[in-house]
Amino acid sequence: MSEVLYDRLALIGVGLIGSSIARAARQQGVVREIVATARSEKTRERVAELGIADRVVATNAEAAAGADLVIVCIPVGACGPVAQEIAPYLKAGATVSDVGSVKASVVKDMGPHIPDSVHFVPAHPVAGTEHSGPDSGFAELFANRWCILTPPKGSDEEAVERLATFWRALGANVEVMDIERHDIVLAMTSHLPHLIAYTVVGMADDLEKLVTSSEVIKFSAGGFRDFTRIAASDPTMWRDIFLHNKDAVLELISRFNEDLARLGRAIRWGEADTLHEFFTRTRAIRRGIVQTGQDSAAPDFGRRPEQLPHVPIPRPYAADGE
Amino acid sequence: MSEVLYDRLALIGVGLIGSSIARAARQQGVVREIVATARSEKTRERVAELGIADRVVATNAEAAAGADLVIVCIPVGACGPVAQEIAPYLKAGATVSDVGSVKASVVKDMGPHIPDSVHFVPAHPVAGTEHSGPDSGFAELFANRWCILTPPKGSDEEAVERLATFWRALGANVEVMDIERHDIVLAMTSHLPHLIAYTVVGMADDLEKLVTSSEVIKFSAGGFRDFTRIAASDPTMWRDIFLHNKDAVLELISRFNEDLARLGRAIRWGEADTLHEFFTRTRAIRRGIVQTGQDSAAPDFGRRPEQLPHVPIPRPYAADGE
Repeated sequence: MSEVLYDRLALIGVGLIGSSIARAARQQGVVREIVATARSEKTRERVAELGIADRVVATNAEAAAGADLVIVCIPVGACGPVAQEIAPYLKAGATVSDVGSVKASVVKDMGPHIPDSVHFVPAHPVAGTEHSGPDSGFAELFANRWCILTPPKGSDEEAVERLATFWRALGANVEVMDIERHDIVLAMTSHLPHLIAYTVVGMADDLEKLVTSSEVIKFSAGGFRDFTRIAASDPTMWRDIFLHNKDAVLELISRFNEDLARLGRAIRWGEADTLHEFFTRTRAIRRGIVQTGQDSAAPDFGRRPEQLPHVPIPRPYAADGE
Repeated sequence: MSEVLYDRLALIGVGLIGSSIARAARQQGVVREIVATARSEKTRERVAELGIADRVVATNAEAAAGADLVIVCIPVGACGPVAQEIAPYLKAGATVSDVGSVKASVVKDMGPHIPDSVHFVPAHPVAGTEHSGPDSGFAELFANRWCILTPPKGSDEEAVERLATFWRALGANVEVMDIERHDIVLAMTSHLPHLIAYTVVGMADDLEKLVTSSEVIKFSAGGFRDFTRIAASDPTMWRDIFLHNKDAVLELISRFNEDLARLGRAIRWGEADTLHEFFTRTRAIRRGIVQTGQDSAAPDFGRRPEQLPHVPIPRPYAADGE
C-alpha cells in the first residue's frame, strides 16, 4: 500500500488545475479520499461523471469539513470569500492551500480567516494549458513544472514540508519563495506575456478596415497564432490576476513600453546593429529554457507537420519533354 | 514518371526555407534537377553532405545560369544585390522568385534588375520554425500553410499560375495578393508578434535586479516560454524584415501602444468588466485559427507532458495509520 500524505483531500473548484490535482493525487496514491465541489451544478455533475473524485458535494463547507488538505482552485478574486465561508468547518491540524497565480492578495484575502489551529500554505503550480473546465485536466500537468510555495512568516515547517512532498509526488519541482518576489517574478514570466498576447489578439480583431479577420486567421502561422493560444485562456481567471497583481503588472508594462519604444526608434532610424544585437541576445534565454527541460527542443513546440498532399499537376504545366 | 513543372530549380540560400523547398520539391517530383548555392562554404558543404540538391555550386551566377526557376531564399536585405548579380546569367523565359517576408521592398530592390525576358513573381510562404540552417528544413514545412504571391502589375499569367502550381505541389495553399496589402497583413500576423516577443524576452534579460535569469527560465511555463520560441528566430532575417517593412510595423506599434495603454488603465482603475469583455473576445479568433487548421486543437500546441515520477514518500510524512 502506498504511503498517503493526507487522508482526505478537499478540492474547492475543479477546473483545469483542480481536476489535474485530483487525477494526479489519485494516480500517485498520496491521498486516501478526494472530496470535490464546484460552484456550478453543471460542473459538479460533470466531475461526478468523470469519476475523478470519491465524493462530489454541493457546498464548500461540506467539502472542507473533516478534510486534511483543502486546496482552493478558483480565480484569485474569489479566494477571500471562500476562506471566510469554509473557516468554521476546518479541522484542527488541517492544511489550507490554493493554486492562485498571485500570492500577496491571496495571503491578504484568505489569511485572516484561517483559524490558528489550521496551517495556511499558499501555493502556485506554474503549469496550465489554454483549456478550462474539469474535462481539460490530466495527471501529468505538473510533471517537471515548478510549484511555488509562499508560506507566511511563522508557518509550521512540517506542514510546509508535507505540502512540498505532496507537490513533488504530483511531479512538480518545489520552490519556497518570498510572497512579494513571487508576484514580481510571475508578473514577468506569466502575467505580462498574457496581457501582451491579449492586447495583440484583441488589436487584430479591431483592425477590420486595415486587415480582415479572415486574413489574420489565414496567415497566423507567421507568429500570431502562438499569441492566440495564450489569449484563449480563461477570462475570469485572468481578469482577477491583473486586478490582484496591479502594481507589479503596471511596473512591467512601463518597462516594456520603454523597451518597445527603443526598438521602434531603432527601426525608424535604421539602426541595424542595435536590432541585430538585441535579437541575438534573446536566443540565449531560449537555450536556457530548453536545456532545463522547461520547453521542448523540438521545432515549433513539436507541432506535427501535416503530410504532403498528392497534388496532380495539371497537364498544361508539365514541363517540356514530358 | 511524374509531371515536372520546371526542369531545373536553382536555390540561392539553403537555410530553413530553402532546404525545405529542396526536400519538398524533390519528394513531390516537380523539378528534374536542383542546383543550390549558399554564401558560406560551410553551408555549401553541409548541403552537399545532406544530399538535398543534385549539385551544389560556389556562386549565385553559376546557380542561376540555365535554371528554369530561381528562388532566392535569403534575408530580404540581401535580395537586391543578389538580383543584380544573377541578372546577366538568367535564361530567357525563366522565373525568378523569392521567399521574403516583406514584398514591397523586394519588388523595389529586385524588380529593376530582372531582364524583360524573365518572369519575376515574388512569393512568401508563411511557414517556419524557430530553427535556422540547412539541417532544420523538412519537406512538410509548407503543408497546409499559405504561400502568398505578389506578382507586379503586368506579370505573365502563365508564369504566375505555374509558380502557384509549384507551391500547391509543395502542400501550400496559394493566395495572390496586392503587394502593399501583403506588407500590412504580415506586419500584423507576423512582424508585430515577433517584435513584441523579442521585446518581452530582451526585457526579461535586462531585469536582472528585479528578477534573475534563472527565475525567468524556471517559471517560464507561465506563458513566457512561448515568447522565447519566437524570439529565438534568426536575427539577421528579422533585422531585415523590420528595416524593410518600417512604415507598416511602426503604424502597428502605435496601435498596439494605444490598446496596451487602455488595458493598463483598466487594470489601474479596476475596470473588471472591460478586462473580462476584452479577454472573452480574443477567444473567438483562436477558434477560427483552430477550425481552419492553421493550428492544432491539442492543448498547449500538443506539447507532450512528461510522465509522472515514482516519488518515494519519506516515512515521516506517511499519514497516520500507515
